[in-house]
Amino acid sequence: MPVYSLHKDRFFDPDPTVRKFASEIYNSTKELPIVSPHGHVDPKIFADNHPFPNPTELFLIPDHYLFRMLYSQGISLESLGIPSVNGKKVETDPQKIWKIFAENYYLFNGTPSGVWLDYEFNQVFGIKEKLNSNNAIKIYDELQEKINSPEFLPRNLFDKFNIEILATTDCVIDDLTFHKEIKTSGWNGKIVPCFRPDSLTDLSSNMWMPNIIKLGEKFGSEITSYKKYIQALEERRKFFKEMGATSTDHGVFSPFTQELSYNKVEEIFQRALKGDSTQEDVKLFTAHMLMEMARMSSEDGLVMQIHPGSYRNHNQIVFEKFGADKGCDIPIKMDFTFNLKELLNKYGNNPNYTLIIFTLDESTYSRELAPLAGHYPAMKLGPAWWFLDSIEGMTRYRELVTETAGFYNTVGFNDDTRAFVSIPARHDLSRRVDANYLAKLTAKHIINISEAIEIGYQLAYELVKKTYKL
Amino acid sequence: MPVYSLHKDRFFDPDPTVRKFASEIYNSTKELPIVSPHGHVDPKIFADNHPFPNPTELFLIPDHYLFRMLYSQGISLESLGIPSVNGKKVETDPQKIWKIFAENYYLFNGTPSGVWLDYEFNQVFGIKEKLNSNNAIKIYDELQEKINSPEFLPRNLFDKFNIEILATTDCVIDDLTFHKEIKTSGWNGKIVPCFRPDSLTDLSSNMWMPNIIKLGEKFGSEITSYKKYIQALEERRKFFKEMGATSTDHGVFSPFTQELSYNKVEEIFQRALKGDSTQEDVKLFTAHMLMEMARMSSEDGLVMQIHPGSYRNHNQIVFEKFGADKGCDIPIKMDFTFNLKELLNKYGNNPNYTLIIFTLDESTYSRELAPLAGHYPAMKLGPAWWFLDSIEGMTRYRELVTETAGFYNTVGFNDDTRAFVSIPARHDLSRRVDANYLAKLTAKHIINISEAIEIGYQLAYELVKKTYKL
Amino acid sequence: MPVYSLHKDRFFDPDPTVRKFASEIYNSTKELPIVSPHGHVDPKIFADNHPFPNPTELFLIPDHYLFRMLYSQGISLESLGIPSVNGKKVETDPQKIWKIFAENYYLFNGTPSGVWLDYEFNQVFGIKEKLNSNNAIKIYDELQEKINSPEFLPRNLFDKFNIEILATTDCVIDDLTFHKEIKTSGWNGKIVPCFRPDSLTDLSSNMWMPNIIKLGEKFGSEITSYKKYIQALEERRKFFKEMGATSTDHGVFSPFTQELSYNKVEEIFQRALKGDSTQEDVKLFTAHMLMEMARMSSEDGLVMQIHPGSYRNHNQIVFEKFGADKGCDIPIKMDFTFNLKELLNKYGNNPNYTLIIFTLDESTYSRELAPLAGHYPAMKLGPAWWFLDSIEGMTRYRELVTETAGFYNTVGFNDDTRAFVSIPARHDLSRRVDANYLAKLTAKHIINISEAIEIGYQLAYELVKKTYKL
Repeated sequence: MPVYSLHKDRFFDPDPTVRKFASEIYNSTKELPIVSPHGHVDPKIFADNHPFPNPTELFLIPDHYLFRMLYSQGISLESLGIPSVNGKKVETDPQKIWKIFAENYYLFNGTPSGVWLDYEFNQVFGIKEKLNSNNAIKIYDELQEKINSPEFLPRNLFDKFNIEILATTDCVIDDLTFHKEIKTSGWNGKIVPCFRPDSLTDLSSNMWMPNIIKLGEKFGSEITSYKKYIQALEERRKFFKEMGATSTDHGVFSPFTQELSYNKVEEIFQRALKGDSTQEDVKLFTAHMLMEMARMSSEDGLVMQIHPGSYRNHNQIVFEKFGADKGCDIPIKMDFTFNLKELLNKYGNNPNYTLIIFTLDESTYSRELAPLAGHYPAMKLGPAWWFLDSIEGMTRYRELVTETAGFYNTVGFNDDTRAFVSIPARHDLSRRVDANYLAKLTAKHIINISEAIEIGYQLAYELVKKTYKL
Repeated sequence: MPVYSLHKDRFFDPDPTVRKFASEIYNSTKELPIVSPHGHVDPKIFADNHPFPNPTELFLIPDHYLFRMLYSQGISLESLGIPSVNGKKVETDPQKIWKIFAENYYLFNGTPSGVWLDYEFNQVFGIKEKLNSNNAIKIYDELQEKINSPEFLPRNLFDKFNIEILATTDCVIDDLTFHKEIKTSGWNGKIVPCFRPDSLTDLSSNMWMPNIIKLGEKFGSEITSYKKYIQALEERRKFFKEMGATSTDHGVFSPFTQELSYNKVEEIFQRALKGDSTQEDVKLFTAHMLMEMARMSSEDGLVMQIHPGSYRNHNQIVFEKFGADKGCDIPIKMDFTFNLKELLNKYGNNPNYTLIIFTLDESTYSRELAPLAGHYPAMKLGPAWWFLDSIEGMTRYRELVTETAGFYNTVGFNDDTRAFVSIPARHDLSRRVDANYLAKLTAKHIINISEAIEIGYQLAYELVKKTYKL
Repeated sequence: MPVYSLHKDRFFDPDPTVRKFASEIYNSTKELPIVSPHGHVDPKIFADNHPFPNPTELFLIPDHYLFRMLYSQGISLESLGIPSVNGKKVETDPQKIWKIFAENYYLFNGTPSGVWLDYEFNQVFGIKEKLNSNNAIKIYDELQEKINSPEFLPRNLFDKFNIEILATTDCVIDDLTFHKEIKTSGWNGKIVPCFRPDSLTDLSSNMWMPNIIKLGEKFGSEITSYKKYIQALEERRKFFKEMGATSTDHGVFSPFTQELSYNKVEEIFQRALKGDSTQEDVKLFTAHMLMEMARMSSEDGLVMQIHPGSYRNHNQIVFEKFGADKGCDIPIKMDFTFNLKELLNKYGNNPNYTLIIFTLDESTYSRELAPLAGHYPAMKLGPAWWFLDSIEGMTRYRELVTETAGFYNTVGFNDDTRAFVSIPARHDLSRRVDANYLAKLTAKHIINISEAIEIGYQLAYELVKKTYKL
């Protein structure tokens, strides 16, 4: 049975010159605090500060990166205990589920999930053997024991992980109760919300109408017009900002942007209130609302993120049985040059506006995104996202982006995770990959080692704080 | 004159750590039998087991990878002896043609054809010098002598190549006479057919009507309706399966899938029988027949392959003079997320169905294909295909696919060749490239050497047998 | 302060085996004369042979690669002295501008601009320290002193750079006065024009009508019909050819090609003369004129270049204030398989025709361009262009193209620059990257060192002369 011994130079090129530089650069960044400007950790865990229930519910159930892969190999989601939408019975024995996970742990070889898990098990929980079918329950028990101990309570882990600040992602109509509780709890962990209006800007969402009603309740007046809708959103932004938010996030299907006339948008809005939206309405309203959100950002200074290009819930059967975010969102090909033109022409030269763009279509890196970010002062490039948040993915990102956009039009790392204990693993991996990329530039005499160390610091810590205004 | 000495560590990274691991992994796979689940070798050569006529007709004439490159440099296909469609005279002196090939052999430097030929000449035929204009005839004579000897008869080469099983590609209406002859010949080489219905599902093919007539003859009743057409196809699938087929293959222009109503498809079919198909008919019928083929596969268990996205016979002049498959098929950009949605929603969760997807558009690897294969249990990724079946191409494939789909949603190697003697060269190259990729993961401490050796075995032998049910 | 010491093995892989081969290959090409078949240097500087005014006007003002990056970081173009269209005042103190440039020089770390500038400062101008905010004026003064000395006059630099031939890019209606002056000056530097008809073939250009009038003046008869227009263009091509031109260049938005009937094109032309062009007219006329230009090239032998796929002047505000070519041209996604079909079918098999295709969409390299160039005798692939003319960009180009198109369907290097003193830096970088690529092939035993050296010679010198007929 292979003993875990995470190599100190793991993920670095084996060439001795590169490895030496990579190690030097990484050593200068590895102890820096974690700044996590975008992610999906539930703030409730820090408000409550209860122990995590068990290894299965800590590692597997919330992480669609993991059960997606198991499902692809014919393992049913029911047998993995993924909660069903209609309450249909699924496996509830956490040890039984854990055993399936352990038996199939080899599927993660060569994937980022594999190296994150190795880190979490070994570096966070002190597990000494790689998980497999033989040691499944033994390791389960070890993990359970740790989970039950005070040092593995959420807040203690937060401190241990050296997290300087963590942003959550929150629906516009959320009261941010857990954020308030954290603030008043006396604990000094810094957790801030992020303003995500998708369910209120996507007219095709089945949450649109219910959320519009709730928005009216918060606003103290029913949302009967586009004008009131905008006022209510502006008020919510103000509230989020008071609660510490520095950014907004927009998970649109397409980054198409287009400003509509007031009459036109009011018409569309009225049809939506009646439940009569057309497909064209949906498309135009989203395009228009991206313009409105950019306008508000240029006024209130909230940094605007766009995460476009995912075909959500591609597998209808899985969606109907298990709901959203179950590993069946599939990327589509993207255009930014045409789609962002109107937005960038109106706000891209504005010094008070910051736009961070993400992509799942790597063909856009060198073709569109690096040229755009290498020109427009307002636009920056988000890090390699989702499927691309990986050793090769992050390496390609730097290789495809740097020569046109440089380092200073990028914004450091996002962990973008629901899996709280994977945060240090993800940041460590990102720092290692960037160190290795910089080491290669150094070994090729493109930059020198002191420049590499300075850039390493920027990528690991400074750029993210500066761009996200944290 | 450079002496051939194919280096034992060829195609491995020069870094000593990587090279050592690559060599170790490759040594564990190099002697494994060849499993060739998809290709275009003519079964007649094994039925007849006659000597190949001469080096020119063995190496050059059937291989459009080779004369394509010569043509691109201004060498006419006539001078290379490529048979014309209309019987117009072309060069018939094999030595004269061979000399042109030899003079231009340097054009293949840095291409997979170059390294395959090096292997074939040196490792299969024992040639000791690299081909050039000076030694052209000397090497021709050496090759001719070998070709004439019994050990270079097709069946003996098949055994020498250690081929465990070889699949051909066969038109639905083929009687599989040569397959029958091989079976009853007493020779124990295992050669199986593959069910390819393209000329019967593509309404725009000029072979559609003649083949429908032949299909009726096999079926014992004229094909006068869509219903009979489907029954006849099902019967042919049964026959192919009895003859050893385990898969079907679909060389469609687009992977668009859509099920039509029975009335709609019968209308389209009736128009086709009258020769009145519209462009829309052609598109919809192909989309519908992919759904039908998936339905049949989910019933009879034949593995379904889709090879989409090639604009066939792009050069009309060459097509008119020399026919299809003359090196002028050009890839187009692809979408799978939208196009496969209907098929995957209906059959992608079905445990009795296997779909293997290929692409010529590398931008789809990380964007669409790895996410799809990393989710749907039925879908697997075919290896790097055609222009991408190369050292860099296969390396990029692993780099772009593995982190999202893992290794176990891929299906090993396809040689996909018409050039029988290139088979061991192609499998050897694939095993070397995979060994090198795994060696890099090992040297970077992403996996350990025993995991790498296990995965190497899977990629070289086990996954292909399992997925193709061989 | 880091002392400049451009490493002799810079940009080569650090692996000792690769580096040794790369060094050997590079040493065999580094002294070869520079052949620059395509670029945008102003011929006036060689006709006048006046000293360059100052470092700021020599390095920064003409180079949108540089001020683009500064602008992306919030530095106004006014403060950089970029001349405004409407005469609005901009910064005129070259030292003040230089200081901003120096303070932000670190932004170019990891970009090709950074390594080109390092070469220019250190290798051309003998500067011993890397530019920064502290040494800005000191280095400015050193550069100014050099600029003022006779050995830094344009013609002397041309000779020092060992330029064998330099092509400019010239509007069809240009009198080529400076080319004439250079020819009759007694100086033996070889500078030739290139025929660029964009403003006369793009009906949407606001220069179309004025240039049509000027074309009539040159032709000696007002351009009142499509027929006269074609005759006039043919006459201009003849004049350019007499002046030494061997190529034409076409900066089209899309490479769509389609031949129109005479009646149809005359109708479109007449509408254009009246200022009544429709969008469809613009598209069809460009498509038709690419066909006409191919026809003329197949008759007069001028090599045809197409540089498609840039969305020019994406930032309307910058365009209105500062005009074209200000760093805000953004690439779009491309198709060549469909768009070039008509042109390649008509002229692609013609031995008297040469077509060189460029792209800014890297997804087309392996998918479309290498397969097309690896088949059609007339078509060749231009080198990595614009944003892709970089270490990683040129490396990806070779990796994505070579295995399908080989080396001999590519055409060596283009510097494509407005920045005259960057020419040796750009060619040196290209030779180093190609040497490194060939070294990797050699170290992996794909080719041998003598083949690598021969190919290196072809890529650095021979292929460009042969393909461009220089």
